[in-house]
Amino acid sequence: MTKIEALQRIATRLRIHSLRMTTQAGSGHPTTCLSAADLAACLFFNEMRFDPQRPNDPAADEFVLSKGHAAPLLWALYAEAGIIPLAALLDLRKFTSDLEGHPTPRMPWVKVATGSLGQGLSVGVGIALAQRLDGAKARTFVLMGDGECAEGQVWEAANAAARRGLRNLCAIVDVNRLGQSEATMHEHDLKAYGAKFKAFGWDVVTVDGHRIPKILEAYKRIGKAGRPTVILARTIKGKGVSSIENLNGWHGRPLKTDELARALGELGCLPDVDAKAYIKKPKPFQAPRRGRQAPPQRTDYTEKTATRLAYGNAVAALGKADTRVLALDGDVKNSTYHDKFFAAFPERSFQLYIAEQNMVGVATGLAVKGYIPFAATFAAFLTRAHDQVRMAAYSFANIKLCGSHAGVSIGEDGPSQMGLEDLAMFRPIPGCVVLYPADASGAEGCVATAADHQGMVYIRTTRPATPLLYGRDEPFPAGGSKVLRRSGRDEAAVIAAGITVHEALQAAAELGREGIAVRVIDAYSVQPLDVETIRAAAAESGGRVVVVEDHFPAGGLGEAVAMALAGEAKVVHLCVRELPRSGKPQELLDAYGISARHIVAAVKGLRG
Amino acid sequence: MTKIEALQRIATRLRIHSLRMTTQAGSGHPTTCLSAADLAACLFFNEMRFDPQRPNDPAADEFVLSKGHAAPLLWALYAEAGIIPLAALLDLRKFTSDLEGHPTPRMPWVKVATGSLGQGLSVGVGIALAQRLDGAKARTFVLMGDGECAEGQVWEAANAAARRGLRNLCAIVDVNRLGQSEATMHEHDLKAYGAKFKAFGWDVVTVDGHRIPKILEAYKRIGKAGRPTVILARTIKGKGVSSIENLNGWHGRPLKTDELARALGELGCLPDVDAKAYIKKPKPFQAPRRGRQAPPQRTDYTEKTATRLAYGNAVAALGKADTRVLALDGDVKNSTYHDKFFAAFPERSFQLYIAEQNMVGVATGLAVKGYIPFAATFAAFLTRAHDQVRMAAYSFANIKLCGSHAGVSIGEDGPSQMGLEDLAMFRPIPGCVVLYPADASGAEGCVATAADHQGMVYIRTTRPATPLLYGRDEPFPAGGSKVLRRSGRDEAAVIAAGITVHEALQAAAELGREGIAVRVIDAYSVQPLDVETIRAAAAESGGRVVVVEDHFPAGGLGEAVAMALAGEAKVVHLCVRELPRSGKPQELLDAYGISARHIVAAVKGLRG
Repeated sequence: MTKIEALQRIATRLRIHSLRMTTQAGSGHPTTCLSAADLAACLFFNEMRFDPQRPNDPAADEFVLSKGHAAPLLWALYAEAGIIPLAALLDLRKFTSDLEGHPTPRMPWVKVATGSLGQGLSVGVGIALAQRLDGAKARTFVLMGDGECAEGQVWEAANAAARRGLRNLCAIVDVNRLGQSEATMHEHDLKAYGAKFKAFGWDVVTVDGHRIPKILEAYKRIGKAGRPTVILARTIKGKGVSSIENLNGWHGRPLKTDELARALGELGCLPDVDAKAYIKKPKPFQAPRRGRQAPPQRTDYTEKTATRLAYGNAVAALGKADTRVLALDGDVKNSTYHDKFFAAFPERSFQLYIAEQNMVGVATGLAVKGYIPFAATFAAFLTRAHDQVRMAAYSFANIKLCGSHAGVSIGEDGPSQMGLEDLAMFRPIPGCVVLYPADASGAEGCVATAADHQGMVYIRTTRPATPLLYGRDEPFPAGGSKVLRRSGRDEAAVIAAGITVHEALQAAAELGREGIAVRVIDAYSVQPLDVETIRAAAAESGGRVVVVEDHFPAGGLGEAVAMALAGEAKVVHLCVRELPRSGKPQELLDAYGISARHIVAAVKGLRG
Repeated sequence: MTKIEALQRIATRLRIHSLRMTTQAGSGHPTTCLSAADLAACLFFNEMRFDPQRPNDPAADEFVLSKGHAAPLLWALYAEAGIIPLAALLDLRKFTSDLEGHPTPRMPWVKVATGSLGQGLSVGVGIALAQRLDGAKARTFVLMGDGECAEGQVWEAANAAARRGLRNLCAIVDVNRLGQSEATMHEHDLKAYGAKFKAFGWDVVTVDGHRIPKILEAYKRIGKAGRPTVILARTIKGKGVSSIENLNGWHGRPLKTDELARALGELGCLPDVDAKAYIKKPKPFQAPRRGRQAPPQRTDYTEKTATRLAYGNAVAALGKADTRVLALDGDVKNSTYHDKFFAAFPERSFQLYIAEQNMVGVATGLAVKGYIPFAATFAAFLTRAHDQVRMAAYSFANIKLCGSHAGVSIGEDGPSQMGLEDLAMFRPIPGCVVLYPADASGAEGCVATAADHQGMVYIRTTRPATPLLYGRDEPFPAGGSKVLRRSGRDEAAVIAAGITVHEALQAAAELGREGIAVRVIDAYSVQPLDVETIRAAAAESGGRVVVVEDHFPAGGLGEAVAMALAGEAKVVHLCVRELPRSGKPQELLDAYGISARHIVAAVKGLRG
């Protein structure tokens, strides 16, 4: 049997598996598996180098299924590679199976969750960058759909890959002409796709995606031009089952049992070939040892300092202590203070320009390979990457995100720059720790906590300089809080975070002058919230609680506290209740009801 | 004085204004105003047609300042056009002024808020489409920065514009080489930008952005190729002030007073020219009368129906009743059921492919011109457009968004498709109404409410068919709720929305069989919440409340209720507390703790 014959047989097996699995499940996307089967067979069983025993081998080529709805094809590939039993395929989409409807890293060969289209190429850029940092010869392959090329993020990733000359990155676009609900914009016009990728700096190879010898030839071109390579493959959706080939209306639709029988009649019985024998293993390679070299140093601040500046200092110090730490920027590093890391460790710094979706995707890819990327931009602009943040969390990615310039306290730049919805964005993200330091030491402590936490952490920083509250070595563990004022006769508890902690302290001082004692809590860990301390504070303060935050009403600290206390305390929620305007920071804090004056009034109101 | 001389003088005035305003404000971005001053002078005072008395003239060309940080230039242009007094310029960035740090539509000539980069072109596509729908000869100009071309959304918009052959759309890219923190990716390489726009189907014109005769020539080419036109202008950041020209580090930095004095010495005194005399007015044009032609018909459902299907029916019926209504799709119209509108009203339907950011931006642009766009995709994928949704709200845009397939109730497709964070995304958006119908009539009622509401509305729909609860003409006003079960002896109130309403009813039936009465509330208006009804229910149910929702814990219905009731009731919150897996809808509702069984247990737990 020639290699061509073997690959043809493997492709047929992939098709049969994909059809059977989806019919058995009663849902799924078989036709997109059929269009990509030949491309995938040639990739896994001739081009890619991997050891089926070692999912995390730094020597291995990596694969990202950006078109996540082709999950059955992926599971079929792993079954053919001997990684999962063939019989497991029929458990597709069952609650008890890791073979989900779209890939998730519950299955260890899946490095990132996919299924929100147009994200895989950014992840691929991150993985390819990590392979280069490691000094590995390994490559990264991303299988994409043609439909998802409409997502702007694809072009952000294309830019980044070309800019960095990632010859070890290859995108394979399965141009099967049909989207979910109708034909794609360019249908089978490979030239249209080619012109775009070429303009974005890629080496473009076009091929008939069902002619295996041609596919093998095309794959030989990968990386040869010293640039990232895209294989644009003309394919037929549903290829191999004539009754559904190239037809609209068959995107997310499995064959019925009788249709499957006819399809299998056409494809023939499962052809005999041992795909495992065609796997090419990589040359052994040991990645350089990276990790914590020394305890990170914290700064001893002596004067008012912005938390964003302290954050920048801490990330740079962490970079010195730990060679896994990387810094990513979206061209605001002089505002987030990632510029300190960039100056100190240029080889571990990545300028990704104004493209936040790609920045988060690249961070996810870098984390796949064991790095600890810190990505920072204005809190407002992380909303741009909400979908990517979500998918990173579903991927269990160990990434750290910083949103600077949060709140009306930024002042004159106006609402578009304020990020008044970031806590509501990050708090629902599964497993995400949300930290919001109030002073410089707190910011450094939160960076330390973030570095040591396995999983996503979001740190919210503030633009203006704020007074110092804590000593150099104060710890800021996730789930903690700091009780800044307490007495045996507290009449209310004021719960604040970040900039409003200073307003709360000022309010406490003013109230104190009137003989009214209040407890003040710095709830720097917005998530997980220190529910125990907050409940105790409420109980010991007559059940009177004021929450004050530089955020819109929904989804932030206030609602977190309200839920934690439900039934146990009256809660007055001071927050930004309308669209703010430009103005001076202190003027805005006051105008939007979150300054000391308003806290004083709220406490007095609660006392009745 | 020749026209060239006049335009040169106007440009100098724009530069002087921009410098003075930002120095006076003590913050802002003067250098990016200086790079674009010549381009802007030629645009406003020779090329664009508008009547300074009529900000909403359908005959007028429209302008979008995508590079929103150049706001001082925009205010200077309006001052030179006689729209605002020159003296008002020195109020830039003051709390009392509408001349904000980044443009907002508080100033009536500003049609959309900008300042989150890379969004203006999508809005421009929407406005240009609306002009075409109106049959107007008017054009749309979008002034962009080079840095923002790194945003993928720009290429989504470029695709859409070319696909629709928008010859009435012109992008002007002020290629000033410098981003915020360093040089841009392509610096002054206009060819690199040109290749990209050309590959995306645009007519590309390059020009020296400081030579007024050349700029005028370039503008003459606009629309001539029957395609959208991009003017790529090579400019110098800080042009006109030699000490800061083309220098990094001067992005968001005004001149100090002494620096300003030196700069004004170099630019000379404010040159004498009456810019108003150079404004070209458009030929009068009356847009066709559009509006509500008949009361929209609601469907009389007789069997279980998915809310997404009823939503699709209702939007199509609304399209028949009201010619302002448009439907937008991101290639999922067979899932959201926008396909019904597409089939009925193809000329008012816009396929924008898989590019959600652009879809929301285009919707915003269409709304600028008085249309009522409904844009729908999976709830999960609206996270892709979080930043655009935010900016649309800051623009007071009258757009309607639908997120379908929300919650674990979608079943087998897995977490990437579930949209378990959408309520937390939309609830903080200022002014956004969030509706979540539980049955088909509710979905139709919510569409009617959305159509009549001025401002953003988000409607959450469900994949599986659900039983009918309401009659055909039941109203679903924003801020309302429906009490589905009540008695004089309710022992708890169960508050649900959407799919969980049916679980709550089932739980109430089960509890009823055990002699335990509970109140059941359909809180279809998640925002604004019907606080009054919910508080009354809590008070009349012994202060025992169970909230059950198909959403992650933070930012959804549960926290909204907890805040509304703070101090008044015990709240048990049933929601999705971990990353879900693939599985059958009912299996997942049960596995993640939001099925009838769990509600029964929660009620019993609260009773103690």
